[in-house]
Amino acid sequence: MKRIGVFTSGGDSPGMNAAIRAVVRTATYHGLEVYGIMRGFSGMIKGEFVRLDSASVSNTVQKGGTILKSARSQKFMTKEGRQQAFDQLVNNGIEGLVAIGGNGTFTGAMIFEEEFGIPTVGAPGTIDNDLYGTDYTIGYDTAVNTALDCIDKIRDTADSHDRCFFVEVMGRDSGYIAIPCAIGGGAEIVMIPETQMSVDVVVDTLQTGWKRSKTSFIVIVAEGEEEGNATNVAARVKEAIPQLDTRVTVIGHIQRGGSPTAADRLLGSQIGIAAVEGLMNGMRNVMAGIVDKKLVYTPFTDTINKKKLINQSFMRMVEILSV
Amino acid sequence: MKRIGVFTSGGDSPGMNAAIRAVVRTATYHGLEVYGIMRGFSGMIKGEFVRLDSASVSNTVQKGGTILKSARSQKFMTKEGRQQAFDQLVNNGIEGLVAIGGNGTFTGAMIFEEEFGIPTVGAPGTIDNDLYGTDYTIGYDTAVNTALDCIDKIRDTADSHDRCFFVEVMGRDSGYIAIPCAIGGGAEIVMIPETQMSVDVVVDTLQTGWKRSKTSFIVIVAEGEEEGNATNVAARVKEAIPQLDTRVTVIGHIQRGGSPTAADRLLGSQIGIAAVEGLMNGMRNVMAGIVDKKLVYTPFTDTINKKKLINQSFMRMVEILSV
Amino acid sequence: MKRIGVFTSGGDSPGMNAAIRAVVRTATYHGLEVYGIMRGFSGMIKGEFVRLDSASVSNTVQKGGTILKSARSQKFMTKEGRQQAFDQLVNNGIEGLVAIGGNGTFTGAMIFEEEFGIPTVGAPGTIDNDLYGTDYTIGYDTAVNTALDCIDKIRDTADSHDRCFFVEVMGRDSGYIAIPCAIGGGAEIVMIPETQMSVDVVVDTLQTGWKRSKTSFIVIVAEGEEEGNATNVAARVKEAIPQLDTRVTVIGHIQRGGSPTAADRLLGSQIGIAAVEGLMNGMRNVMAGIVDKKLVYTPFTDTINKKKLINQSFMRMVEILSV
Amino acid sequence: MKRIGVFTSGGDSPGMNAAIRAVVRTATYHGLEVYGIMRGFSGMIKGEFVRLDSASVSNTVQKGGTILKSARSQKFMTKEGRQQAFDQLVNNGIEGLVAIGGNGTFTGAMIFEEEFGIPTVGAPGTIDNDLYGTDYTIGYDTAVNTALDCIDKIRDTADSHDRCFFVEVMGRDSGYIAIPCAIGGGAEIVMIPETQMSVDVVVDTLQTGWKRSKTSFIVIVAEGEEEGNATNVAARVKEAIPQLDTRVTVIGHIQRGGSPTAADRLLGSQIGIAAVEGLMNGMRNVMAGIVDKKLVYTPFTDTINKKKLINQSFMRMVEILSV
Repeated sequence: MKRIGVFTSGGDSPGMNAAIRAVVRTATYHGLEVYGIMRGFSGMIKGEFVRLDSASVSNTVQKGGTILKSARSQKFMTKEGRQQAFDQLVNNGIEGLVAIGGNGTFTGAMIFEEEFGIPTVGAPGTIDNDLYGTDYTIGYDTAVNTALDCIDKIRDTADSHDRCFFVEVMGRDSGYIAIPCAIGGGAEIVMIPETQMSVDVVVDTLQTGWKRSKTSFIVIVAEGEEEGNATNVAARVKEAIPQLDTRVTVIGHIQRGGSPTAADRLLGSQIGIAAVEGLMNGMRNVMAGIVDKKLVYTPFTDTINKKKLINQSFMRMVEILSV
Repeated sequence: MKRIGVFTSGGDSPGMNAAIRAVVRTATYHGLEVYGIMRGFSGMIKGEFVRLDSASVSNTVQKGGTILKSARSQKFMTKEGRQQAFDQLVNNGIEGLVAIGGNGTFTGAMIFEEEFGIPTVGAPGTIDNDLYGTDYTIGYDTAVNTALDCIDKIRDTADSHDRCFFVEVMGRDSGYIAIPCAIGGGAEIVMIPETQMSVDVVVDTLQTGWKRSKTSFIVIVAEGEEEGNATNVAARVKEAIPQLDTRVTVIGHIQRGGSPTAADRLLGSQIGIAAVEGLMNGMRNVMAGIVDKKLVYTPFTDTINKKKLINQSFMRMVEILSV
Repeated sequence: MKRIGVFTSGGDSPGMNAAIRAVVRTATYHGLEVYGIMRGFSGMIKGEFVRLDSASVSNTVQKGGTILKSARSQKFMTKEGRQQAFDQLVNNGIEGLVAIGGNGTFTGAMIFEEEFGIPTVGAPGTIDNDLYGTDYTIGYDTAVNTALDCIDKIRDTADSHDRCFFVEVMGRDSGYIAIPCAIGGGAEIVMIPETQMSVDVVVDTLQTGWKRSKTSFIVIVAEGEEEGNATNVAARVKEAIPQLDTRVTVIGHIQRGGSPTAADRLLGSQIGIAAVEGLMNGMRNVMAGIVDKKLVYTPFTDTINKKKLINQSFMRMVEILSV
Repeated sequence: MKRIGVFTSGGDSPGMNAAIRAVVRTATYHGLEVYGIMRGFSGMIKGEFVRLDSASVSNTVQKGGTILKSARSQKFMTKEGRQQAFDQLVNNGIEGLVAIGGNGTFTGAMIFEEEFGIPTVGAPGTIDNDLYGTDYTIGYDTAVNTALDCIDKIRDTADSHDRCFFVEVMGRDSGYIAIPCAIGGGAEIVMIPETQMSVDVVVDTLQTGWKRSKTSFIVIVAEGEEEGNATNVAARVKEAIPQLDTRVTVIGHIQRGGSPTAADRLLGSQIGIAAVEGLMNGMRNVMAGIVDKKLVYTPFTDTINKKKLINQSFMRMVEILSV
């Protein structure tokens, strides 16, 4: 293998640039050439390739977003689109790929490999942390810290005005972001997709607190929560406890950007190195991850089909800590 | 005057604690006693008074929110409520007040003074900066920096995905927060209550940019904007330019909290000192403010009736800088 | 066991308050009483005890430093001092202790237990991360992020002026802080106690970079580094390469404070809970830690005598990434 | 005038990029061409010119440092060097200059104009805020907030350990940075070049506080302070009060970098616009500044010869607030 390509796909996450930088420098270190593929599969089809060398990624490790940009590609879902992508890679002499993204990205890469034989090693780049095969995904730590920083600010107002804030954080299918936000943000309640806490339980908990003369509350709601999002929950709670002064904040896209934390820069760097060295060692259709401090490569079939379960003890922690 | 009271009222804002600290220490420095009145007029009626000395306000200058809490009081709008408040003050020997808040607070204080003769000096504590009689209000600088920090994060995603973000910032009646967010956040468009920019103009500007191959955009919308809030504007723009990938973020209450900036700590401190020294010099029904680096006391009738106009040159700046 | 005490000892670290809060709330949850012991062993000897309940630790999870304060105690190193401490505990009905600190603290607690039988469970509270028995210590993640934030700022100036900055970070006996700062900060070189990189190697590396037309450099130096601290190293490099524009920054105590990161709040909370439940289960002379996501209790004799080795692969990472 | 050049010179400061961006976009808006001159006068002599258009400065408003880099030039201090610089400008058709820097830069530009007739309008880019002709310099607000953020972290440790910290901030000739750091950081004492506080007074103040059972202290020392820097002061205080647990932190270059605050982005933008429009209106040898919210152009002879005095009331504030 003499030349590889690297791209980011799916939602951007902080630390993607650290991973790109590590891919470029590791390839350079080992004598490989690297091309950046702009806008994921979309740019691959159009041949948006940029030669990257060590200097190209100087001063990027601390940057949020992705310097290679990201986009969705309907066309790559067609055989014709993938054929075009393959032709572009062949014409440019690209023999292997590092794909930074999530399961959507890995699924595309796997189909592509089956059809055209171009090997891909994946890097888990998503703030959601819901990928099997790695303890943490690149961007997760930053997203949690950003959300927590927002919650710290909201608590100032909650305390000053004796209010109950419902704060919606990201995490469509899992409570990975919500849980540390609740524990670290001193929240009284956390509603996540994995449990099915009813609004009645929320109401009960708040009323119990109210009787113990607690006057301000924070309820963390994961966006994918079964009982509906923060605005819905707040409305139903307000109906049940009209004297409660409720407010809603949806943190939203703020969680997705910003300079990556130390942990995300380190993780992005580790995985970027591992992805290139994996490719060099003949791997394909696997994702590089860190589990229990050790580097592991997990088949895409597992990252896609297996579910990383949230630690049940965290739910108990929220209960104990809001005593 | 031997004993004064200090309270915060209306929405909390960062730097209120710096002002409270300055009030307490200035009073102490001049040999006055100080009581903190909890929850504004509401606590005044109930007699929620706390003796404060120099040590009470140690380690508070950097804290967001207000250690004296804030609340609305329907009761203070009645003569009966104000009579109770007066009785509480008299029983506790409180002869003058420092009121940290906005025009709602000052109106209450002015009526109270007319009826019962208790003098109040006001301090402009609000993130909105829409008070006549001071260049900046306490909390404004922090709110702008917090919003800008959020916009910086959003720009990471806007750039990475070639998207158009509509970001709603606070400021019901004025563009004071929106304008520096637009200039400092590199926004293409800013919609504020003072101008009446139609959605058509927004659409035109975005289309012009699009043709010049700009691919990501940020539009700042002040919450009070005539053409409707960010969600509405975004929907109408999307209708007009369907190929635009639009997203909305409402920064909301996050802007209200957090540790105050240097400017807000300094301003809160200056005004806290001035408020106490104003009271000692026999002032009443005035707000202490800083205009052109000089301390000024403005009658409540002016802060309430006069409008602080936004610098028109700022609108021109947004136009030039988004060239 | 009906009543326990909790104290912090040794250097303060961010997340100690999250641990104290967890100790208090877990004890409350299980029906135990908790006393805070001010200023570590020093306050134990003097009987500086404060009853803590759930409300005492409200709004502390986000605070840096330690609300229980910390101090060194020469007196506790004497039998007489420990006798007084024991008497104070007995007089106040305190039957078990949670000690938040490092090996100095644990050694004291172990001797105390041998002499007087008061059981202690330890929590690893130090920014240095050099404690055997836990993957991370409470405060480490925050310290690294704070240092990295400083390095990001320094890089702005290094780049703008084509300079070489020598940045000294904490970590007297280990490179745990220096390593992620180097990887995440995009440093060219890292000097840590575990390796013995000579200044000659530093000079060689910088000269090689210079020839490849690199114009700005960052060298991270752990304070305990064998070849001398940052100021010494910089002086010797300047002698060897006079044309290099060198500067030194010692981050120092800034690394020790500040609001804890999400990871430190979570870790402090987990370990605080575990410490109390350990005590309730009859444990003594052990430290609660998290290893590979699992809660483990490690005997003080091991935390004191065994060395947690730094991952050798990290040194290789710095080399690859600065290509 | 058809083509202008812009450069940064002297120490970098946050907001310089906002000013560069404003220069580029204002010139573009008015139909002028702009060249960036790399590394100040040094690059002018060597002809390091880069054509800048609107897109060149996209996504720079939030960046610390200077994208045009900065350097000292001994050669520009010679007539021969200036002749070369002039030739380079003429050869490239550059007819006017915007110089972002301080008095050293303005002096060079003034001599250059006298000899060769190339007009320069200056922009005050320095963190020190010691330039006559503007209320604030570009970078000052960010530097103060950065220093204050460090002091907030240090206070955590000062409080936790009952220590006295001597914190050295930048400002060789003035206390502009030290004063708001002291007021906003809750410091007990501030030592600045403008006053000549002896170490004896520091000792007295600390001893008085100690007797009133204050246990932790922060002393802010401006680097240019007459009585010597923080390390010296701390040593002499320790000699006088041996029981005081003293520590020193020199914030140093950390203050110089980082993303600019809202105020610095706004100021840089205002002044960048004003500089270009000044040049277009035939101005030369003046610095654009904002005084009492109004744009003013001050002759370089005044910015160089007149001294901007620090507000004496600030010293009184520190005294009152540390009561």
